[in-house]
Amino acid sequence: MFYIIGLGLCDEKDITVRGLEAVKGCSRVYLEAYTSILMVHKERLEAFYGKDLILADRDMVETESDEILRDADKEDVALLVVGDPFGATTHTDIVLRARNANIPVRVVHNASIMNAVGACGLQLYNFGQTVSLVFFTDTWRPDSFYDRVKENADLGMHTLLLLDIKVKEQSEENLARGRKIYEPPRYMSIPQAVAQLVEVEAARGAGVLAPDATLAIAVSRVGGGGGQERIVSGTLAELLAQPPAAFGAPLHSLVLVGRRLHHLEVEYAETFAVDRASWRRVARDVYGCALD
Amino acid sequence: MFYIIGLGLCDEKDITVRGLEAVKGCSRVYLEAYTSILMVHKERLEAFYGKDLILADRDMVETESDEILRDADKEDVALLVVGDPFGATTHTDIVLRARNANIPVRVVHNASIMNAVGACGLQLYNFGQTVSLVFFTDTWRPDSFYDRVKENADLGMHTLLLLDIKVKEQSEENLARGRKIYEPPRYMSIPQAVAQLVEVEAARGAGVLAPDATLAIAVSRVGGGGGQERIVSGTLAELLAQPPAAFGAPLHSLVLVGRRLHHLEVEYAETFAVDRASWRRVARDVYGCALD
Repeated sequence: MFYIIGLGLCDEKDITVRGLEAVKGCSRVYLEAYTSILMVHKERLEAFYGKDLILADRDMVETESDEILRDADKEDVALLVVGDPFGATTHTDIVLRARNANIPVRVVHNASIMNAVGACGLQLYNFGQTVSLVFFTDTWRPDSFYDRVKENADLGMHTLLLLDIKVKEQSEENLARGRKIYEPPRYMSIPQAVAQLVEVEAARGAGVLAPDATLAIAVSRVGGGGGQERIVSGTLAELLAQPPAAFGAPLHSLVLVGRRLHHLEVEYAETFAVDRASWRRVARDVYGCALD
Repeated sequence: MFYIIGLGLCDEKDITVRGLEAVKGCSRVYLEAYTSILMVHKERLEAFYGKDLILADRDMVETESDEILRDADKEDVALLVVGDPFGATTHTDIVLRARNANIPVRVVHNASIMNAVGACGLQLYNFGQTVSLVFFTDTWRPDSFYDRVKENADLGMHTLLLLDIKVKEQSEENLARGRKIYEPPRYMSIPQAVAQLVEVEAARGAGVLAPDATLAIAVSRVGGGGGQERIVSGTLAELLAQPPAAFGAPLHSLVLVGRRLHHLEVEYAETFAVDRASWRRVARDVYGCALD
């Protein structure tokens, strides 16, 4: 059996009981290396699961799937992934390969940011398409995300923005010299993300990301205990003015609030507001939300 | 501490290790009675968790939250819910009440249909808003869902349709006589759902639910082992022609495929097709998907 097992969002204890039982019965267990975005290290996972883990970066999952799937028709092999297994196309791809090789596959689901973002208080069924925001560089500042956000905003939907991460980057020098030395991972911060949104709004001007009239909620480490989870709500301008530390440790995501907003959503997210009075004022005056 | 713990989608082993540890330390554990939609009975959960569970229907979670939260500032109390805690507004409401009473709250996330639906092979970030479909009656056939589906379809987004369930219904006679006798739960089947879609399409005529030109994927018991998980893809007409048993046991959900469709999505879901050739033909000719 080939298992793809979601690890959830935080640490070694977010695996399900079913997932843990499967791991313990496997002859080989791969850990997708994007798990650098879990809040714990490989060694802690290994100690808790009682298994050595083989690191597999996303390239390996794509290009060496034959090795990962080797003998999975005769013994149990698992691939552990952060969040839920169907968060990335690479996982549907390896499932297809397994099926074509007549290897039975079992997926063990878990929370991912796609549903855990409900922790911000906005109702999941009112989210439109999910949008990715990549790091701007001096020469590459793609703004097509703006069209996606506008499509959602025009319908009054909320938008989950997934912020870029860079792992396994090589410096230009190391790349030129063929040295497999990698830079430390980089995570887009909330102020960086908001600055990019505001820049593109200034250029495009459709008003869907007006700094003082757009409500947003920053989330990080959803479900994390010991105060790791951070949720901060406010206008884009208010979020931009916060120091990065206000948003806790990465990974961060940002939710843009749509106009189809219920007063219960406003009240729930008000708990996390930079400025409660401002939060309520914009919800009432700009979003037209009926509040006391 | 007040815990709200997601149980995931299938059975007693879908709870996370963190969730299970929390349950074992609680002095009272409530089980939201919509858990009739889990695939197992309360007794099996109790045996596995080693705890007696207090059934709480959704009314009780709304109206008797004071009792549920009693002493949760001094001891640990848990509310177990199917899927993820933020799938229902009642849960954000009880979190707000706990906060207002200065009771610390910890949410333990899990998979829900909102992210596990990725198992059908469609990419989650291309889903628009989620839409609920209620049972039509002789006198009440609400069609406003059609507008929501059309909004998604116009953008090329997929739509997750959540199918109605009826639990704790009373017959008219029992209701009139004040007898608290409840009918067995009812779950909308896939053919019922599709029949309602086709009926509304005939009346509204915008062509977003054309029986022979709209691709859809029925899912049930996602993540369930032993062949419980069923995924069936086809045109609406093809799904309508299947016997209900083809879709496995409830709960069912239905995904309407949007035009922004990638060939990998087509290929993945083809595995589940009623008729593979027809699936590919509609994907290519109607959806304009580039296939070999």
